[in-house]
Amino acid sequence: MRIARFRTGSSAGFGVVLGDEVARLDHRVPSFEALLADPVTPRADDPRLPVADLAWAPPLGDHPKVICVGFNYAAHAAESTRAPDEPARPTLFARFGDSFVGAGTPVVRPAGEDSLDWEGEAALVIGRPGRRIPVADAWSHVAGVTCVAENSVRDWQLHSTQATAGKNWHRSGAAGPWLTTTDEVGADPLRVTTRLNGAVVQDDTTDRLTFSFAELVAYVSTFTPLRPGDLIATGTPQGIGLRQEPPRFLRPGDELEVEVSGVGVLRHGVVDEAPALVGVGA
Amino acid sequence: MRIARFRTGSSAGFGVVLGDEVARLDHRVPSFEALLADPVTPRADDPRLPVADLAWAPPLGDHPKVICVGFNYAAHAAESTRAPDEPARPTLFARFGDSFVGAGTPVVRPAGEDSLDWEGEAALVIGRPGRRIPVADAWSHVAGVTCVAENSVRDWQLHSTQATAGKNWHRSGAAGPWLTTTDEVGADPLRVTTRLNGAVVQDDTTDRLTFSFAELVAYVSTFTPLRPGDLIATGTPQGIGLRQEPPRFLRPGDELEVEVSGVGVLRHGVVDEAPALVGVGA
Repeated sequence: MRIARFRTGSSAGFGVVLGDEVARLDHRVPSFEALLADPVTPRADDPRLPVADLAWAPPLGDHPKVICVGFNYAAHAAESTRAPDEPARPTLFARFGDSFVGAGTPVVRPAGEDSLDWEGEAALVIGRPGRRIPVADAWSHVAGVTCVAENSVRDWQLHSTQATAGKNWHRSGAAGPWLTTTDEVGADPLRVTTRLNGAVVQDDTTDRLTFSFAELVAYVSTFTPLRPGDLIATGTPQGIGLRQEPPRFLRPGDELEVEVSGVGVLRHGVVDEAPALVGVGA
Repeated sequence: MRIARFRTGSSAGFGVVLGDEVARLDHRVPSFEALLADPVTPRADDPRLPVADLAWAPPLGDHPKVICVGFNYAAHAAESTRAPDEPARPTLFARFGDSFVGAGTPVVRPAGEDSLDWEGEAALVIGRPGRRIPVADAWSHVAGVTCVAENSVRDWQLHSTQATAGKNWHRSGAAGPWLTTTDEVGADPLRVTTRLNGAVVQDDTTDRLTFSFAELVAYVSTFTPLRPGDLIATGTPQGIGLRQEPPRFLRPGDELEVEVSGVGVLRHGVVDEAPALVGVGA
């Protein structure tokens, strides 16, 4: 199943995507998180909404823990100046939930910053809560896989040793359009492909992850409880804009696509930050 | 005013601390966050609760952004192997809200880990929301100052270049017991003192911060919106356990105190992780 959150007019909802319609489940399932923890199959009498009439929201909990993994493909680690040679443990950082928009909504290029870079990734949405989850059980705690544009403002990422400031610009990244449940996501490996205006810029497969999906769930849940709707973004392949020659960053007019095989395609445009907001701090 | 959150029996509440009582405000203010954004003075008819009858909860929003600053006292930076020589920008990392307990509740030393270390800090609780807040306006967005034990599992902090895994152990840190509002917090500088079993281990003053309170609010709010109940932990002074000779880490039976002048004293004990929880991942 493809489980999604959306907005339509002034209301928010969630449900299961069936072709070009969504079967709404928010009238009979108490929360999106509850649906992730215990997915239900749409019935014929669930209200249907055309996909054309909605805006996707990120398929995350209302207050998600968002944990991202750095340098998790060897080829990307090799293009990064700050990656360890032989990582013994995952490199982790956190994003705030509001650093993401849903699929189809343009991300925001911050005023005065021209280093907004793409990072296409496969990401795990947690379904069953857990702490200290063993590797062997990890997949049973994952509701599904989604696509993430874990976009980063490189200049701010390099302000200090910690990536936080470059990874948390408001509405700079995107997630979605939905999560595909683990029973349907297809056989490993998944292929992660990023396209900028139609041209492939990143392309790799998850069998080349340094730390696998299951290892990441186990490692993260060792120190923090995972809950339905939390997200683990599993790392980006080689080919970020910073390492293009010359470097190429996102700008208004661009269309980015992140495709994860068996899951779907996340598309987003880019807009400049609204002048009114900039003025607040002027 | 001293604004606090607490639990009593099975209920949660918030209010203003008046000596050894709390004037409850949760019957007439819609949320703790609303109280921070627009503090109200207790009235004679507000219900009073003896402090002895309650357990403090962290004085944070329900779903706070918690941003911590590393290496923000020069003397602590000097004792740290990973600090930059001349930081041009703050070093930031995020903690999940559930990595904190309230004052008086013991923090949890993770099973199998003996490197749980203290970091006493003064921390800012946001009152008025904002984005791109200018330095000159920053103080008007701060509801008050609280004490934080930004405790860290050093071995995990050093697993990678990013501190995240060592900074987010469930219930490893503490915040509180309350925030003292900015109008009463006293003149700068504040003094930050950490005592382990009564002996001073950290002691410095906030005029020696590399990045001031106002500069931190401005910097963080440049990239992410701040909301009532968000927290900025402003950095720890010299004297962490890792740099004692020999290194000294927290263990059951210890009592840690973090005192911020004009604010109060945060006290917490230490307990070992419950065996049942450890078993989940065995």
